[in-house]
Amino acid sequence: MSSARTQPPRGMRDFLPADVRKREYVIGVIKEVYERYGFEPLETPAVENIETLLGKYGEEGNQLIFKILKRGEHEKTGEADLALRYDLTVPLARVVAQYQNELPKFFKRYQIQPVWRADRPARGRFREFYQCDVDVLGSRSMVVEAELIAAASDALVALGFTDFVVRLNHRQALAAVLNNAGVTVEKHDDALIALDKLDKIGPEGVEKEFAERGIVEAAGKRLLGFFTALGSLEHAAEIAAGENPFVKRAALNNAILGRLVEAVGDNEAGARGVDELQSIMAFAGASGVASRVKIDPALARGLSYYTGAIIEISVADLGGSLGGGGRYDNLVGMFLGKDVPACGFSLGLERIIVVMSEREMFPAGLVSAPADVMVTIWNEDSVGESLSLAAELRRKDLRVDVYPEPDKMGKQFKYASSRSIPFVVIAGDEESARGEVAVKDMKSGEQRSVKRSEVAEALRNRER
Amino acid sequence: MSSARTQPPRGMRDFLPADVRKREYVIGVIKEVYERYGFEPLETPAVENIETLLGKYGEEGNQLIFKILKRGEHEKTGEADLALRYDLTVPLARVVAQYQNELPKFFKRYQIQPVWRADRPARGRFREFYQCDVDVLGSRSMVVEAELIAAASDALVALGFTDFVVRLNHRQALAAVLNNAGVTVEKHDDALIALDKLDKIGPEGVEKEFAERGIVEAAGKRLLGFFTALGSLEHAAEIAAGENPFVKRAALNNAILGRLVEAVGDNEAGARGVDELQSIMAFAGASGVASRVKIDPALARGLSYYTGAIIEISVADLGGSLGGGGRYDNLVGMFLGKDVPACGFSLGLERIIVVMSEREMFPAGLVSAPADVMVTIWNEDSVGESLSLAAELRRKDLRVDVYPEPDKMGKQFKYASSRSIPFVVIAGDEESARGEVAVKDMKSGEQRSVKRSEVAEALRNRER
Repeated sequence: MSSARTQPPRGMRDFLPADVRKREYVIGVIKEVYERYGFEPLETPAVENIETLLGKYGEEGNQLIFKILKRGEHEKTGEADLALRYDLTVPLARVVAQYQNELPKFFKRYQIQPVWRADRPARGRFREFYQCDVDVLGSRSMVVEAELIAAASDALVALGFTDFVVRLNHRQALAAVLNNAGVTVEKHDDALIALDKLDKIGPEGVEKEFAERGIVEAAGKRLLGFFTALGSLEHAAEIAAGENPFVKRAALNNAILGRLVEAVGDNEAGARGVDELQSIMAFAGASGVASRVKIDPALARGLSYYTGAIIEISVADLGGSLGGGGRYDNLVGMFLGKDVPACGFSLGLERIIVVMSEREMFPAGLVSAPADVMVTIWNEDSVGESLSLAAELRRKDLRVDVYPEPDKMGKQFKYASSRSIPFVVIAGDEESARGEVAVKDMKSGEQRSVKRSEVAEALRNRER
Repeated sequence: MSSARTQPPRGMRDFLPADVRKREYVIGVIKEVYERYGFEPLETPAVENIETLLGKYGEEGNQLIFKILKRGEHEKTGEADLALRYDLTVPLARVVAQYQNELPKFFKRYQIQPVWRADRPARGRFREFYQCDVDVLGSRSMVVEAELIAAASDALVALGFTDFVVRLNHRQALAAVLNNAGVTVEKHDDALIALDKLDKIGPEGVEKEFAERGIVEAAGKRLLGFFTALGSLEHAAEIAAGENPFVKRAALNNAILGRLVEAVGDNEAGARGVDELQSIMAFAGASGVASRVKIDPALARGLSYYTGAIIEISVADLGGSLGGGGRYDNLVGMFLGKDVPACGFSLGLERIIVVMSEREMFPAGLVSAPADVMVTIWNEDSVGESLSLAAELRRKDLRVDVYPEPDKMGKQFKYASSRSIPFVVIAGDEESARGEVAVKDMKSGEQRSVKRSEVAEALRNRER
């Protein structure tokens, strides 16, 4: 019986054992890589004071925050004083402000916890989902960006991904390109939303949307000129590099950086942005991940708190990204009153699992049997014998299930088999009298007597 | 600056890296033991539909549930349709009802997740805290109770606890004792609340409270007679057993069971309850944990959904318990329309950590340095050299931090030292020219040159 009464809330999920094991595998791999980069774990409450979250995610974000009623009888007033965590970045900024005297000068933390958004649920979009964040606080050096790109890449490689692209852009460079083309600041978002559709609706479509969105025609034309010209660079790089995709990628990135230099012109912040992109590329090269990175001058990212480099990782067979991040030098200042430079990257656990499942990337044997062996119960009188045998095998580090009640042997075997438990031990009367037990191999069906004191060893030998 | 703006919500906590590592250690040990008993992991959403939770925890529980405002603009009406998870047992019952055709006949799951209660925060009492639950669904056999007691005991032993007591009672036996003494059903709770203070306020105090709570005088006297007589049994068992605490415990349990048989008399449910206690003791004996168990006829436990055995684990130096549980054969029926027998036990992570911290039970070296080695940055021009060295060492499975920016060497050394990182690697100009790097042992201060290709090996040798 599956009824509304027994379902989890809309957009949220129960994870049965096989699901949990998949999730724990992915989280374990990501953690191990992040630890190799010197990141340390942080955990914050699922709940934040409501004023901690409001005003940090823009108007749309405010709407999507789950709000919790104030303690006591506030059903009538509807007063909410708490809210569910919306991302892991704002809580981090709060933590850095709160514990600034306890934290190291450069605080490198990872945090793998769920967040909640009152979004309209859709395929692959949930109202409760995990984020896997790494952030470095305390340095303005582009070494940080390069390390974050390398760590996220390493995590994906460790999970078996080979074909992802790290798209890289810079908020100040992007703003300079738009400004120099003649797009006023308040129209930047409109221009980017339209440009984002270039692949889908072509230059004419974008030009039409520019007009609809009130962007000056000449500015729109200049912008389109810049971005469509980038497309032709790809073709040129292909010809120059021949078959080598790494050479092609490097040639293309250099060509794009060249065009960006021109496009930002003498816009100071923009020029600094392009310089930073160049540093990041050089450092990513030293870290061995430059061939994963593609400069993408059209990359914008939604959140308003980014101030510098912005990063997104994508694969061809997934709409949306596997993760994203960037530099946000002003967010901590909203809590602390003085700015602390910061840069971070977040991998989306759910999307990684979706792609890994579709591509069958999970290691075989990940979802193993719940036990190495099941001890049966021969009859009412032998329950104690079975329990003491189970205790002995567990002391020898075997994972042991016990059939919980006396039952027909056939039913107990059938149960073990349905649970994929490879061996069954039977402490029958005859065997017990001889100080032995019967061990049944559920795969071959073979059954033999083993000295009671040698069961653990016998099972271990046959498992191999 | 620590201000209200940057604190976590009242009664909730941030866990900095050293805290997280302690928590993960405890959770890891508990998981491993539970897996050895054949339990499988389950995870449910932090949020439940509000009707899933309401009415399951009594009137007080209803008040303590955090309620979430319905999506959209419901601030005015205050309509709440969701709520934060209050325990892990009700969500389990919902899951068993929802997925009954996918789950095995005997569903043995563990679940280690946070729960939220709008309780008044106090020392050791939080509004967000973790529960570590194991439950078995599908069997009425007392093997289940014995296995749960053994699993929880094993988990505590694996964490280093040696002095805990597993208190065991039975709801039906308790009800029969109260009935036979002449306490009416609606006064059972009052009688137990007063009896709970016997150690503190003595028989006269309890008698007075009985009167205040409206318990018939003769009934109160009979009850007090029964429970004070149990105290003298302890003395008798001591004399009989001499110095051996195990023999004493067994003698005492047998004596108490004898008194319970008398006290429940011909109350059928009560007599069955005592029989079940006897079975649990026999099975616990076979599992090797009987010496941990103490029959405690006064144990009541708060939650209303228990129907059979009830269990609580305590240590002398902690008010309250380390964990508790019991049988609840009717809860799944509230979701499914038909009953599924169930029994479970929950360890309280926060209390375990409180006691382990006070007793200094955490293994040394648990909170290790965040990295095995830190790579310094010699100057602006050598950033790439440092990053490629870091990448190389990480590929060889070392945990490597990189100082993120060029800085005075002294400052970089000081930073590594403050982070307890045992080694620092310097890719200075001279060494680099020779294909070498300098390795500094931060403990001894000794510094020597090592071939670049041999750094990982050299570090590994010196770590041992």
